[in-house]
Amino acid sequence: MDINVEVQRQLNILKRGVEELISEKELEKKLKKSLETNTPLIVKLGIDPTGSDLHIGHAVPLRKLKQFQDLGHRVKFLIGTFTARIGDPTGKSETRPMLSSEDITKNIQTYLDQLKLILDMEKTEVVYNGDWLEKLKLEDVLKLLSQFTVAQMIQRDDFSKRLAAGKPVSLVEFMYPILQGYDSVAIDADVELGATEQTFNLLRGRDLQRNAGTEPQVCMMMPILEGLDGVEKMSKSLNNYIGITEAPNDMFGKVMSISDDLMWNYYEVATDVPMEEVGRLKAGVADGSIHPMDCKKRLGAEIVTIYHNEEEGRKAYDWFENVFSKRNMDVDLPEVKIDEDEVGAIDLLVKKLNFFKGTSDARRLITQGGFKVNDVAVKDVKAMIKIEAGMIVRAGKKKIVKITK
Amino acid sequence: MDINVEVQRQLNILKRGVEELISEKELEKKLKKSLETNTPLIVKLGIDPTGSDLHIGHAVPLRKLKQFQDLGHRVKFLIGTFTARIGDPTGKSETRPMLSSEDITKNIQTYLDQLKLILDMEKTEVVYNGDWLEKLKLEDVLKLLSQFTVAQMIQRDDFSKRLAAGKPVSLVEFMYPILQGYDSVAIDADVELGATEQTFNLLRGRDLQRNAGTEPQVCMMMPILEGLDGVEKMSKSLNNYIGITEAPNDMFGKVMSISDDLMWNYYEVATDVPMEEVGRLKAGVADGSIHPMDCKKRLGAEIVTIYHNEEEGRKAYDWFENVFSKRNMDVDLPEVKIDEDEVGAIDLLVKKLNFFKGTSDARRLITQGGFKVNDVAVKDVKAMIKIEAGMIVRAGKKKIVKITK
Repeated sequence: MDINVEVQRQLNILKRGVEELISEKELEKKLKKSLETNTPLIVKLGIDPTGSDLHIGHAVPLRKLKQFQDLGHRVKFLIGTFTARIGDPTGKSETRPMLSSEDITKNIQTYLDQLKLILDMEKTEVVYNGDWLEKLKLEDVLKLLSQFTVAQMIQRDDFSKRLAAGKPVSLVEFMYPILQGYDSVAIDADVELGATEQTFNLLRGRDLQRNAGTEPQVCMMMPILEGLDGVEKMSKSLNNYIGITEAPNDMFGKVMSISDDLMWNYYEVATDVPMEEVGRLKAGVADGSIHPMDCKKRLGAEIVTIYHNEEEGRKAYDWFENVFSKRNMDVDLPEVKIDEDEVGAIDLLVKKLNFFKGTSDARRLITQGGFKVNDVAVKDVKAMIKIEAGMIVRAGKKKIVKITK
Repeated sequence: MDINVEVQRQLNILKRGVEELISEKELEKKLKKSLETNTPLIVKLGIDPTGSDLHIGHAVPLRKLKQFQDLGHRVKFLIGTFTARIGDPTGKSETRPMLSSEDITKNIQTYLDQLKLILDMEKTEVVYNGDWLEKLKLEDVLKLLSQFTVAQMIQRDDFSKRLAAGKPVSLVEFMYPILQGYDSVAIDADVELGATEQTFNLLRGRDLQRNAGTEPQVCMMMPILEGLDGVEKMSKSLNNYIGITEAPNDMFGKVMSISDDLMWNYYEVATDVPMEEVGRLKAGVADGSIHPMDCKKRLGAEIVTIYHNEEEGRKAYDWFENVFSKRNMDVDLPEVKIDEDEVGAIDLLVKKLNFFKGTSDARRLITQGGFKVNDVAVKDVKAMIKIEAGMIVRAGKKKIVKITK
């Protein structure tokens, strides 16, 4: 094996979809040394056990981790059992409450259960920062604190904004980036992955490693995935997400709802389709030789394949074709049970079917003729809909359910 | 005993010379409760074992502590073995280096040796904050940090000035006031003494005690004593101090060199002369019935009495009378050995006798006729003085030495 060729091959795979790399030169050097000494790189991704259901936005750095794993590197998946009690202030406009240890334990289990869908857990070392942070004493803390100045900390975007707005920033929040940095010293990380908004924290690891006399870690910042709306970042609370444990048809349907522009983003950071091929698809759409809808269906199938398997990907593709493209009702439709005998049109769309978050979107759809009951458009926003078992309700092109009673 | 009368008596003694009291009402309440329950108040004074020789400026809060002791309260004299490693940033324009533990041990011994001159050591509990601070773990530190915001900290005068000037403020310095406050929780202080510049730190103890559900300590801020020059605060490095271990005649002579105005300050915070009497002296000087020099001699004798004894006070008084007022040479004079046979007038005053820090003051004295060798004025600043054993050199009215070879 020509080491330089292999370094370039790995670098090309690893650079895909990365928003910022500090620095490419250092990563190249580390990969070379790793190959020469036959010592895998230690790659760190830390999460706080605060959340629950993972979506494909969370999966972006996790899938990058998987690439390192596939290339033979050592993945240390760090669960911030200790730091979760502080709460990462990143991007928050207010001080976060500390988590109880019960919540933490429950969240970790949910997290690990879902991780299996992305990482090779046999080759993943799960580490908990409570194991070393719990042992730190005041003297150690002071040594860490002495390596940073107040000015450095308040430079951080979310701190400076909150300070300028007169909102409280607890001193405990200054500890979060420092402890995240110390984690890198503790596990001897060569590379740390994170979202772009984590850059400040990731760089603190470099500071502390450098001060400790070790080689600073490479910081690899992944983009934050836009949600289905193409505007906000993907998040559960905004209901613009694709959960990695969602059913194939739901995943597929959600992919179909994104804009053509957003599709290329998802191709790059949420699938393994080679970038050359993505380039060809994009060119085809641009010159009119490929219909964007076809690219989107392919994207849907790719994403279902990642979190389920190829067969499910194909089946979801067929299902969508039948229901939406061929308007064939002879397929499984999502079912929703409604007890009432009669429901107002807007209430049906917003409260019963959760198709919309607010009434104004529902109102617009109805007046534009997108609301159909058994394929008949209902354009009166005040219409009372008689609920019957087996009736099919559509909202626009991509939302469809069968009502049961 | 009428408790209310006793409370007022104690309050009057304790309020003497205090610059700020937070708050008098609370101190009154605490004194009352102390008398009612027959439980002495716990009075804290903390020092960092950074310095060496104590001067009568350092003695101001120590003498206040002695008053509490004399009134039957419990004195906890806190030595900041732990915090000394951080260095209190108060009033400093730069981050202080940490002290080595050898320096700390040496400084503590020097400190305790001198304390005996002021406090009743039998009734003084000496405590070391390393005993509890060393045990704090990261989790405890986070709990402390969570009680303060960044905005609160950077309000502190010396922090905000340094930040505004773009000078570094280490994060570790934020810990100093917090740990000083935690010390008050740890030793359950009812009252903490400090200099006015310590107000910010002392108040943090109130915050932490309140949050811990205990009654906040009373903060008693003592003024910072001006040095002999009446301009700068008394300090060894400015050579404007009276050390508490200095010889009686030296102490006395230094007191005689202060201005008439400054004398009343010294009377109030550096002696036990009842304030009514100080008032009478002041009035006498004002109406011309008492010569200020007589008040100053009395002050000199009072200060020598405090750090030596009454007899030494009287002897220093007599010595000064003989040498300066009666110009009687038949007394012990301070002796200085000079090896050279001939020394320039300015060099003699500045380098050999240390009467002045700079040449310009020496030059002025000479031209004004204040420099006398064997009672003959030498007004030529370029004069070479022939050094002979037994010769008497005077500089102004209060500096006199006998030369030996």
